[in-house]
Amino acid sequence: MTAGSTSVEAQEVELLLRQQIGEVLRTHRLHKGMTLRQVAGRASVALGYLSEVERGQKEVSSEILQSVADSLEVPLSLIIRQVSDRVAASEGVYIPDTVPDEFVSEAGLVSENS
Amino acid sequence: MTAGSTSVEAQEVELLLRQQIGEVLRTHRLHKGMTLRQVAGRASVALGYLSEVERGQKEVSSEILQSVADSLEVPLSLIIRQVSDRVAASEGVYIPDTVPDEFVSEAGLVSENS
Repeated sequence: MTAGSTSVEAQEVELLLRQQIGEVLRTHRLHKGMTLRQVAGRASVALGYLSEVERGQKEVSSEILQSVADSLEVPLSLIIRQVSDRVAASEGVYIPDTVPDEFVSEAGLVSENS
Repeated sequence: MTAGSTSVEAQEVELLLRQQIGEVLRTHRLHKGMTLRQVAGRASVALGYLSEVERGQKEVSSEILQSVADSLEVPLSLIIRQVSDRVAASEGVYIPDTVPDEFVSEAGLVSENS
């Protein structure tokens, strides 16, 4: 943390961001029927660390987010996109487009809309 | 880094993710006509650190990304959305929707499409 004091409101949003990332990763993992151990092994990250990331308790670096996305065989861009949709909902920001169901089903991915 | 060895290809994508975040932040800052000093001051982060984040040289935590978004008066969700659009382009993943120009202009924000 380089930042100094942050407001309670800001901290709640921060927590949400980490949680959103974790929940998107967990949703894809469960959709693929993979265990934490399998994903952690393929991504070369510690199982306990991945579990904390999924629960929104640990920050994830660009490197690890990429490794986990690769291990789940989900494009990193889709994960970030679904995180942005969730953050938008929590911010009360309405961004009209979401990932279209056709794209998700064609790619054999899990939809955030269903 | 908890991850072990990563391929050259993975490292290139990793670099891109950090760079995409930095470029989106810089684009919004310049659009608002703000200096690094102003944004860093409002976000309570060190100027040198923010400069490195904008150049994709430093990882940004959830906390700092939220602080910088607040300081730029841009919804965090829009920043993440624009990052996902850029990562999709670099991955060669075509996600049909982008942030609509009407939304961007109504919110007085900078468009990635223009």
